Amino acid sequence: MKKAVLLLSGGMDSAVTLYMAMRRGYKVHCMIFDYGQRHKKEIYYAKRLARHAGCDYIVLKIKLPWRKSALLDKDLPIPDRKRLRGIPITYVPGRNTIFLSFAISYAEATNSKVIFIGANAIDFSGYPDCRPIYFKRFNNLVKEAIKARNIRIEAPLLYKSKKEIVRLGKKLGVPFEMTWSCYRGGKLPCGRCDACRLRQLGFERSEAK
Amino acid sequence: MKKAVLLLSGGMDSAVTLYMAMRRGYKVHCMIFDYGQRHKKEIYYAKRLARHAGCDYIVLKIKLPWRKSALLDKDLPIPDRKRLRGIPITYVPGRNTIFLSFAISYAEATNSKVIFIGANAIDFSGYPDCRPIYFKRFNNLVKEAIKARNIRIEAPLLYKSKKEIVRLGKKLGVPFEMTWSCYRGGKLPCGRCDACRLRQLGFERSEAK
Repeated sequence: MKKAVLLLSGGMDSAVTLYMAMRRGYKVHCMIFDYGQRHKKEIYYAKRLARHAGCDYIVLKIKLPWRKSALLDKDLPIPDRKRLRGIPITYVPGRNTIFLSFAISYAEATNSKVIFIGANAIDFSGYPDCRPIYFKRFNNLVKEAIKARNIRIEAPLLYKSKKEIVRLGKKLGVPFEMTWSCYRGGKLPCGRCDACRLRQLGFERSEAK
Repeated sequence: MKKAVLLLSGGMDSAVTLYMAMRRGYKVHCMIFDYGQRHKKEIYYAKRLARHAGCDYIVLKIKLPWRKSALLDKDLPIPDRKRLRGIPITYVPGRNTIFLSFAISYAEATNSKVIFIGANAIDFSGYPDCRPIYFKRFNNLVKEAIKARNIRIEAPLLYKSKKEIVRLGKKLGVPFEMTWSCYRGGKLPCGRCDACRLRQLGFERSEAK
């Protein structure tokens, strides 16, 4: 059975990516990162989803001894979504590069040929490491970085709108109730942060004609 | 004062790189990785060297929940140096990519423009992530990976022989007695592993005419 590594965040994009990978016949090894997020809720959701989907997972604990992001630093406020331009304060420097660098190591150790990531560059927060050029460069790097020369990153949602992602997820039977997007870790999603607003947008538009 | 991040391993190559960076006028932030090496001796040496050089340092603890290297797995024997071809069992998949991905994050957080790494591609162990093409690809990635677009990796020893590295270190006043190369963590260096043999080679040849 062909194998893949998948970065699982607990949010809806990586959940849809997981179900796509399984539909394509991959045995998926999920990687969940505990990198000092403001709340552990997304980790709990990610684990539960992996179990629900019947995939194995590992949780990697990473402590970044510096703070430069509202996602890591509880002294910085999470902003409500207001504007779509520029890089927001929730940006974590180098986050996807750190995650993917562990993923290539894990892929080589598990003989996986593909690394799936649910990144999206259409209805997204403007993070530099979610853009097509970033993944192109990373794939160019991977060819020279490890012993195995045929491991590649795939971001199948990269060019999809949130609407398309929700529709695709519904078709694949993704249990969206088992995903968590909100940057704030309250009992219920706040409905105002960037992640909440993008999620709502997806669901609203997916219902429209 | 211009600032730099430097990957400090405890070995002689990163020590010489540190002294080069200081000579070039950088205030250096050292990064030391505790990634489950067989022994902690190199971490102890790295810290002591950073203090001796008057630089600040952080230690990043990383736990890789897989084992595929004799440097991580105590059940695998460290081989004596025999052959120069091929990738030896001490290879850790993705190691420099993991280290450098943390370094770009730290560089952005500290406003450093350069990341120094003591990698060497002449008298080396054949690891794929120590070759010039690897660093070229990584620099191409960095331009698109983070908010700051002017951070670059420099590997000033890349094209130097061990002999040249030792000579350069002597000129710069590197305290070689404060560095540790041996893969085995005994009281004294074993003198037989890859790291010991490459070190000896450097010292012997540096004395020759």
